[in-house]
Formats: sequence, C-alpha cells, structure tokens
Amino acid sequence: MKKKNKKVNASILIIGNEILSGRTQDKNVAFISNWLNTECGISVKEVRIIPDNEKIIVNNILSLSKRFNYVFTTGGIGPTHDDITAQSISKAFKVKYGYHKQAFSILENYYGKKKFNDGRRKMAMMPSGSKLIYNPSSAAPGFMKKNVFSLPGVPSILSSMIENCKKFLVKGSVIHSKTINLYTVESNIAKQLGKIQNKFKKNVDIGSYPFFRLGKIGVSIVSRSSSTTELKKVNRDILNLVKSKKIKILKI
Amino acid sequence: MKKKNKKVNASILIIGNEILSGRTQDKNVAFISNWLNTECGISVKEVRIIPDNEKIIVNNILSLSKRFNYVFTTGGIGPTHDDITAQSISKAFKVKYGYHKQAFSILENYYGKKKFNDGRRKMAMMPSGSKLIYNPSSAAPGFMKKNVFSLPGVPSILSSMIENCKKFLVKGSVIHSKTINLYTVESNIAKQLGKIQNKFKKNVDIGSYPFFRLGKIGVSIVSRSSSTTELKKVNRDILNLVKSKKIKILKI
Repeated sequence: MKKKNKKVNASILIIGNEILSGRTQDKNVAFISNWLNTECGISVKEVRIIPDNEKIIVNNILSLSKRFNYVFTTGGIGPTHDDITAQSISKAFKVKYGYHKQAFSILENYYGKKKFNDGRRKMAMMPSGSKLIYNPSSAAPGFMKKNVFSLPGVPSILSSMIENCKKFLVKGSVIHSKTINLYTVESNIAKQLGKIQNKFKKNVDIGSYPFFRLGKIGVSIVSRSSSTTELKKVNRDILNLVKSKKIKILKI
Repeated sequence: MKKKNKKVNASILIIGNEILSGRTQDKNVAFISNWLNTECGISVKEVRIIPDNEKIIVNNILSLSKRFNYVFTTGGIGPTHDDITAQSISKAFKVKYGYHKQAFSILENYYGKKKFNDGRRKMAMMPSGSKLIYNPSSAAPGFMKKNVFSLPGVPSILSSMIENCKKFLVKGSVIHSKTINLYTVESNIAKQLGKIQNKFKKNVDIGSYPFFRLGKIGVSIVSRSSSTTELKKVNRDILNLVKSKKIKILKI
C-alpha cells in the first residue's frame, strides 16, 4: 500500500440480476466495506446494485469512478453469457476488450491446454491495460482498470482475493469506532444524544441502532471518528447520560 | 391492489451509515425485492445504499422517484438525531415537514400521554400529505409520499409492515422462474447456454450461478419470464443440453 492520504473513499457496484431479484442474499457489501475500513482506512460512501445490462453498467462505472477515489465491482466476470462486466468497463473507458496475456497463461496452466475451452478463455478477456488481481481459489483473476477493481460475485472467492488489491490502494486515516450497548429504548435518550452529536459534529459521527437480545430491547450507540481523543470525549458524555438516566449497560 | 399494468418497476434506497460501513448486514433488499416480485409482479431494477446525509438523501429521492414507478426507502424513521428520512423527503418534494395527525394519535395512544416525549413525537413528523403504512410491531407508522414508501430499517419490523403497502401499489405481470441445479462447472456449458439465451432473448432472462454443496461444485441455471410457455421452451432446451453433455441434475 502507498503513502497515507487523509480521506480516501470508495463505492461498491454489485452487478447481478440474482441479487436484485432477491434470489441471492448479498454478503459482499459488508465484507468489502469492513475490509476497506479496517485494513485500508477507506470509507465506502455509496453502494449500488444493478442488473447485468451493458448500458447500465457503463453509465454507473462512468458516474461512480468520477465521484469516488475507488470503485469495487462484484459479479459478472465468469465464463457465461450474463458475465459482461469486463466488456462493459472496456466500453465505459473506451479501451480495447481483448485477451490479457498473463491472465491467458494463468488460466491455460490451470486448466491445461486441452480443457482450455471458449468459456474459460473468456475469463482472460479484459479492458486493455488492466492490472491483475490474483485469485488463489479458482485461478481466474480479477482486474483493475483506472480506479475500478473488478472482483467475482462468489463471496468465498472474493474474500480470498481481496488482500491482493492492497498494493494498488492509497491508504486513508483509519476510522476508529466505539460501541456502547444499552438496555433502553431510543426515544429515552434521543434528545440528549442529539445534543452530544451536535457538540461533536465536526469530528465524530454517532449512530443509534435498536437491537433485540434474549427477549430484551436495547440500543447500540456507535461513535466513529479518525480522532481517538474526540472519541474518548464523546464516550465520557454518553456514559454521563447513561448514569443520569440509570440505564443498564450490556457487556458483550 | 389496483388494476393490472404490464411492467411495473421499483428501486430500493437503503439509508444508513451502519450498512455502508459494514457493521450491519443488510437483509431488507432481498426481502423487499422477493416480496415485490412474488406478491405484486413488481421488479426491482436498482438498489442504492447511502449515508444518513440530508443532501444525499434528497438527491437520490429526486433521481430515483423520477426513474422508477416506486421507491422503497428503509431506515432513518426512528426517534434519534440520525433519523432524517422524513425531513429529507419533505425537502426533496418541497412540502412541509410536520406532525401527521393520525400518526400522532396512534403514537400517543401507544405510549400514553405521560410517556409521549419529544423523541417519540418526532416519529409522527412526516412530509405533508403522507399516507400511513401501519406498523403492527412497534406502532410508529411508515409513510408514503408521492411514489416513495418509507419503512424502518429493523428487518423484523419492516417485514411485519410490508403487506400494508399493497393497497397503494399497482400490480404488474408476475415474473415466473425456473431453476435447474447441475453438477458441472459454468465453463462446460457457457457456449451452448449463451446460444439458448440468444434464441429466447426477447422474453426470457437466463442467469448462471455457481454453488458449492457438500464439497461439490455446481451451477444453478435460473430462467425468468412473464410467459410460462416461453419458460417451458427454454427449460426443454436446457434439459437437452444437459442430456447431450451427460451432466447430473441435483434435485433439492
């Protein structure tokens, strides 16, 4: 990973009819976002889920790659007719879509010359000038073109490849977070919590999320900031609020 | 539900820093999309996940509500400072943000006059002219303004409310689907499957999704169409392909 830069952001573009239709539960958003946050200090600012449609992919690649430092796509890089991510990104960036020599040789070695059929060869076709993202699970590499990283949709394969994106990324400041779980309802603390957020609005984001645990209702208060000093101050104010309201803290 | 209309579409707008950061795994996209598909014949064409930020919410509401028949938002309608969906939608549609009389009375009855504090009252504030979506779980209603439905982020509460959206929706043609699970790899059938898709490109969408089951690799072929006749024809062609390649079918 390269030199530090304060604020680095990314977006995720999930490409696949099966996610849009609700047939398949997406798991890649949470995984990629968590990894970018904790490993690279990069915040995901927008996610889109779109169908396997060339025109729609092209428009989204153009719009997201302009607005964010990085774009991560998932899905559509396999051997079948509905895998059109690589050709769509080529079209978006107006570059040739053709065989990537090194990807071709990785796949030819993996399958053996005799079994290296058209479908498998298709997985070596990429936007011209792509950098490869190696795949330790099933050989077929992902690729990076400009600021767009293309990864497969199968979560177990994607997660085995993500570390190989690191060398291409500029690291941002790590965002720290602190969670306090309370046995109360949101409306009991909403007003005072709003005041705390307002006091620290420059440096800390405070979120409030209801939970249900063993039949009891609770609220998780999550504070996030690049400054651990500010985070400690917020934490102190929240604990004072909890004390004044005689709320029980849940220790997990 | 009102009269039938052939093609009706929708988008989903997930509002919440906790989903974007990967802290919370979204489950609402798959649930809403499945429900719209099977119960209402409505296809979800785009999903966006965005932060709790008024300007960003306003821009997305304006853009999605123009492009799709319906928009479903989740999250941001609770009592805390980070719940800003209702005020943002009011701003997007340039209408007053204030108490909805019926929502106010529902919540006042639920909590009792003495416990009806500011946080709880906030949940009765909506864009002027909103229609209520009743909430059998925790009282606080969702609302519909123009073609935008706003639901809470907690999946168990959302799913208890979704049926109450039905009366406001125009039904589309139901999309039928047929899945065939095969013990093979995608690249073994990619070429022939592409030909079948091409033959039926007008009326049927064929998707191909790898799976891993008890240590074996397989592919699910999912065909989707509003015409059951076309779906049967596609199914016949796929079964012929399976036979010619001597592929084993997995019966689940």
